[in-house]
Amino acid sequence: MAPAPKTNPKHQKRRPPAQTTPGADTRKEVKYYGFAACMALWRARPEDVIRLYVTEQTMKPFSPALKWAAAQRKAYHIVADEDLERLTESIHHQGVCILAREPQPLGFAQLKTQLEKQRGPVLLTWLDGVENPHNLGAMMRTCANFGVEYLLGETGKMPRLSASACRVAEGGAESVKQVYVENRDQALAELQAAGFTLMATGIRGKSLYAQKFPKRVVLIMGAETSGVSKDLYKLVNTTLMIPGTGKVESLNVSVAFALLAGEFARQRLVSPHR
Amino acid sequence: MAPAPKTNPKHQKRRPPAQTTPGADTRKEVKYYGFAACMALWRARPEDVIRLYVTEQTMKPFSPALKWAAAQRKAYHIVADEDLERLTESIHHQGVCILAREPQPLGFAQLKTQLEKQRGPVLLTWLDGVENPHNLGAMMRTCANFGVEYLLGETGKMPRLSASACRVAEGGAESVKQVYVENRDQALAELQAAGFTLMATGIRGKSLYAQKFPKRVVLIMGAETSGVSKDLYKLVNTTLMIPGTGKVESLNVSVAFALLAGEFARQRLVSPHR
Repeated sequence: MAPAPKTNPKHQKRRPPAQTTPGADTRKEVKYYGFAACMALWRARPEDVIRLYVTEQTMKPFSPALKWAAAQRKAYHIVADEDLERLTESIHHQGVCILAREPQPLGFAQLKTQLEKQRGPVLLTWLDGVENPHNLGAMMRTCANFGVEYLLGETGKMPRLSASACRVAEGGAESVKQVYVENRDQALAELQAAGFTLMATGIRGKSLYAQKFPKRVVLIMGAETSGVSKDLYKLVNTTLMIPGTGKVESLNVSVAFALLAGEFARQRLVSPHR
Repeated sequence: MAPAPKTNPKHQKRRPPAQTTPGADTRKEVKYYGFAACMALWRARPEDVIRLYVTEQTMKPFSPALKWAAAQRKAYHIVADEDLERLTESIHHQGVCILAREPQPLGFAQLKTQLEKQRGPVLLTWLDGVENPHNLGAMMRTCANFGVEYLLGETGKMPRLSASACRVAEGGAESVKQVYVENRDQALAELQAAGFTLMATGIRGKSLYAQKFPKRVVLIMGAETSGVSKDLYKLVNTTLMIPGTGKVESLNVSVAFALLAGEFARQRLVSPHR
């Protein structure tokens, strides 16, 4: 499984000294890929970067990161397309791969502290079983666009953001913090106490376009096939229906999410005359 | 390549007599799969169905179609999951496969005739290079929801709707007609003459949320990586910008499409008090 990239000796840098952080960091190392995803990762959290791989073609557009790597004595390799394909296990690498630690997730207590400081409108998103990396990636890209900063979910249930999802997010993953919650019902009750309305979509609900969005919303998005789980639905304050012809039962989860987040943004975040 | 499904002799029906349509029908045969996709196909165009495959588990929920097949003397097979996986070349078959002819595309002249009859608001979609089946499928599902009935594109450039895209569309593909156009510029000029405004998204444009949508719009959606091609952009009447934080350059094409189609529907199709 260990990659054996064709390295260019001229550009081969020495490995940085082994990490000496004492025990604390248990984050996994992930081979991120995709140009925008890698560029955003390097900009957002260079401290997590372990090594970089580029093709001859992407050396130039990716040169700011490579110069930084050289200065930081981080290893980078010039490899062939095939090597990158093998390394990333994907044909969608777009000429770049960064081996990096996963982002540090946020604890629920930290989230609460951060929310206390926020005075403006806040849209939080709770993922209840969404798993397809294409959907997750598209959702993170939408989050980044509409300023949705936190993705919440239950520990053990919320998927980790894979390299594939991050590639699809086109850099958007770096603007979104994952918050793993131990006790779902308690956490949602605490958010309600902090002024948040829990919303989900459903076939029988109020029209999305007739809904005046409150200032603080937790949007609960259900799994691709099964939707929001029944016991979670019971906690929801407002069920919204996306109007339509009725020719399909529902929309793709990333599409539904965008319509809701977009409507929240339209009402609460965007000046109508912009 | 020929599938060898494990057939249940009790349910094995005789093949229908060979098609005798004289030469006219050159449509390809496709192995459609996915429960909602197959159900919608059978309901929308049973005449295109050649044979059906189900697993023991899906016999019951799919029984209306199987009863119809028996009455029509169309073959159906009860097969194992593995066989269906091999047959459909997908793990997402959901226990059903229908071998059927592709839908008959609509000619541009036919589209014009149909548009002449329509008095209400119309949103047409022009695909300029969108290819990923996940995106195409999600877009067709959105089309079905918001009443977008026609997907236009250049002959040879617009992708055929694959079985995979149709599965992702969850039945929505059957509500959308593909229209292959020979002469793009002439066709778009004719649509403009018929009262249509050509719209596309761009980084510098009018805010989507400040746009009052006209009654007749052709929405031009560009390819996943390259966007709308330059020479097509020149024909566009209105460029719309989806407002946001600027943290990502753009949104996933199926997400952007949904935001535009949703806004059109909100303004022109949906009663605000529904």
